[in-house]
Amino acid sequence: MRAITIPEPGGPEALVWAEVPDPEPAEGEVLIDVAASAVNRADLLQRQGFYDPPAGAPPYPGLECAGRIAAVGPGVTGWAVGDEVCALLAGGGYAERVVVPAGQVMPVPEGMDPATAAALPEVACTVWSNVFMVAHLRPGETLLVHGGASGIGTMAVQLAKAAGARVAVTAGSAEKLDRCAELGADVLINYREQDFVTEVREATEGRGADVILDIIGAKYLEPNVRALAVNGRLAIIGLQGGAKGEVNLGALLSKRAALTATSLRGRPLAEKSAIVAAVHEHVWPLLANGQVRPIVDRTLPMPEAAEAHRVVDAGEHVGKVVLTVPGA
Amino acid sequence: MRAITIPEPGGPEALVWAEVPDPEPAEGEVLIDVAASAVNRADLLQRQGFYDPPAGAPPYPGLECAGRIAAVGPGVTGWAVGDEVCALLAGGGYAERVVVPAGQVMPVPEGMDPATAAALPEVACTVWSNVFMVAHLRPGETLLVHGGASGIGTMAVQLAKAAGARVAVTAGSAEKLDRCAELGADVLINYREQDFVTEVREATEGRGADVILDIIGAKYLEPNVRALAVNGRLAIIGLQGGAKGEVNLGALLSKRAALTATSLRGRPLAEKSAIVAAVHEHVWPLLANGQVRPIVDRTLPMPEAAEAHRVVDAGEHVGKVVLTVPGA
Repeated sequence: MRAITIPEPGGPEALVWAEVPDPEPAEGEVLIDVAASAVNRADLLQRQGFYDPPAGAPPYPGLECAGRIAAVGPGVTGWAVGDEVCALLAGGGYAERVVVPAGQVMPVPEGMDPATAAALPEVACTVWSNVFMVAHLRPGETLLVHGGASGIGTMAVQLAKAAGARVAVTAGSAEKLDRCAELGADVLINYREQDFVTEVREATEGRGADVILDIIGAKYLEPNVRALAVNGRLAIIGLQGGAKGEVNLGALLSKRAALTATSLRGRPLAEKSAIVAAVHEHVWPLLANGQVRPIVDRTLPMPEAAEAHRVVDAGEHVGKVVLTVPGA
Repeated sequence: MRAITIPEPGGPEALVWAEVPDPEPAEGEVLIDVAASAVNRADLLQRQGFYDPPAGAPPYPGLECAGRIAAVGPGVTGWAVGDEVCALLAGGGYAERVVVPAGQVMPVPEGMDPATAAALPEVACTVWSNVFMVAHLRPGETLLVHGGASGIGTMAVQLAKAAGARVAVTAGSAEKLDRCAELGADVLINYREQDFVTEVREATEGRGADVILDIIGAKYLEPNVRALAVNGRLAIIGLQGGAKGEVNLGALLSKRAALTATSLRGRPLAEKSAIVAAVHEHVWPLLANGQVRPIVDRTLPMPEAAEAHRVVDAGEHVGKVVLTVPGA
C-alpha cells in the first residue's frame, strides 16, 4: 500500500507519499481500506519530530479515518468486511490501509460521505470526553471555547448548544467569528482586539465561564483562571501557548475550581473504547437528526498532505482539512 | 451567652472570652447549646484578620461543634429540642450557643462523647468531599496525604484505608509518622529528611500517587505534579506554602491529570448539605463499627482558646485540639 511517510522530520515538504508494507489485523483489530483521513495539530508536531507515535502505533501520521472494513482479526464481534466505518486511531490514518482496535471503530453516520465522516472521530471524541465526561457541562451553563473556528472549536460549539449550554468563543478574525455564530455561538470574542476575560464576565453578569475548553495552555492560564466562574472547570487539551505557567491557587481555591489537562492519543485502549462508545451513544443521534455536523474546510488528495499541513500551520481554515485516498 | 471574640486581630492573645448577644434560629435553622468546638487552621487566619467569615455567618471563630439542640426554627423537620448533635458551621463554634442551617447538622455518633464528636465535622466533610466526591479514590489506588498527623490527615488515612486504598503520608517527625502508622498508613515519609516524590515512586513501582490531598499549595505544586500517577488527581485544600506557583501543564497533560482547589466554608448551603448528607451516609457507619475514629490531641476549656491556638500554630499536636464550654 501507499502512505504518507516522514523520511526526515521538518516542514510540510517532509511528508512523502510512498510505498510501504501492508498492515495485518491482529487479535481484536480490524483492517480498514481508508477512503479519507483528516489533519490534526498533533500531525504537525509529529511531522516536525516532536510527537512520536505511542508504542505499537503505525509510524505514519493520521489520528482518524473513514473507509470500509477490509478484514476482521480474531475475536472481533459486531463488525464485518464491507462495513462503512470511521475510527479513532493512534496513528497511520494517512495511508491506504490501517489496522485499529475494534473498540475505536464507529459506523459512518447514515447518509454521510466518507470524506465528511473522516473529520469526525478526533473532534467528537476530544470534545465529548473533555467537555461532558470530564467537565460535566450542564444545561444553562456557559462554555468558553478558545479557537472556536477550529475543528475542535466548531464541534464544541455545536455539541454545547445541543446540550442547552450558552457558548462563548474566541477567534482571530471577524470571518471566523461569523462562522462560529452560524453554528450557534452566543458570545463572539476577537482575541486580537478584545480582552476575553472582560468579555466573558460582561456576557455572564460577572459570573464567568463554567467550563473553558483551552488549546493554548501556559499563555492563557492566568486569564483563564480569572475567567472561570465559581465551581468552574478548565479543560486544557493543547499547549500552543507553552507548557509552563504560573497559576494562582488562591483564586482557584476561592472559586473551588478544577483544572484538567488531557490528551486522547496516549490513553489505553479501554479508555479510548469507553469514549468512543459514549460518543456513539450521545453524538451520533445529533448527527442523524442534523443538530450537529462536522465542518470541513477543504478536501485535498492525500498525496498533497504537505499543502494541507501548510493550510493548518497558517491557520487559514475553519473546521477540518480532510485528505482523500486517490481512487478510493 | 459568652463567646470567643476578637476585639483586635493578632496573636493567640487576641482571643477574648466575653459576653455577647444570644443568637436566635431563623427559618430552616436550629439553635445548639454548644458542649465543645475544635480548632481549624482557618480559625488561626481569622484571628490574624486574614479570613473574614462569609456574609451571614457569626463573627466568632469555630467551624464545627457538638452539643444539644436548644431550639428549632420554623420549617425544620427531623430534629427536636434535646437531640445530641454535631454540626459543620460557617463560624461561631467558639461560643455557648450557635445557630446553623439544619442541613449541616448530624447526630452525635452512638456512644461518642460530645468533646470527641466536636472533632468530626470539618475533617470528615473535608476529606470525604475532596478524596471521595471530587477525586474519586478507588480501592487499590494510592493516596498521598501531606500532613498525615493533622486532624485532616488522621481522618484521611483512616477513611482511605477503610475504602481499600493504599496510603502514603508525609509528616515532620518520627513520632508523628508512628501515629500515622498506627492508623494504618502504609508508606511513611519524613519530609524533613526524605524527598516525597522519590519515596512515593519507589513505593508504587514508579507509578506515583493516584490521589494527593495537599495542604501546602504553591511550594509543593511542582513536586506534587511529579508525584502524580497517570490519571492522577491533586486535591489542594490549603495554601500553607503559598498561593502562586508554576505548574508544568505538559506534565499534567501527559499524565491526563486533574488539579482541584476547594474550601468548605464559602460553599452555598445546598452544597454543604449534600456533603453533610454523604458524610452521614458513608462515614457514620465506619464510626459505628470502629473502623474510623476521630483523633483528639487534647481538650482545653474554651476560655483558654489562646493556648489551643498556640499549640496548633506550633504544630505540636496530632489530630484535633478540642475546646469545651465550661459547665456544659
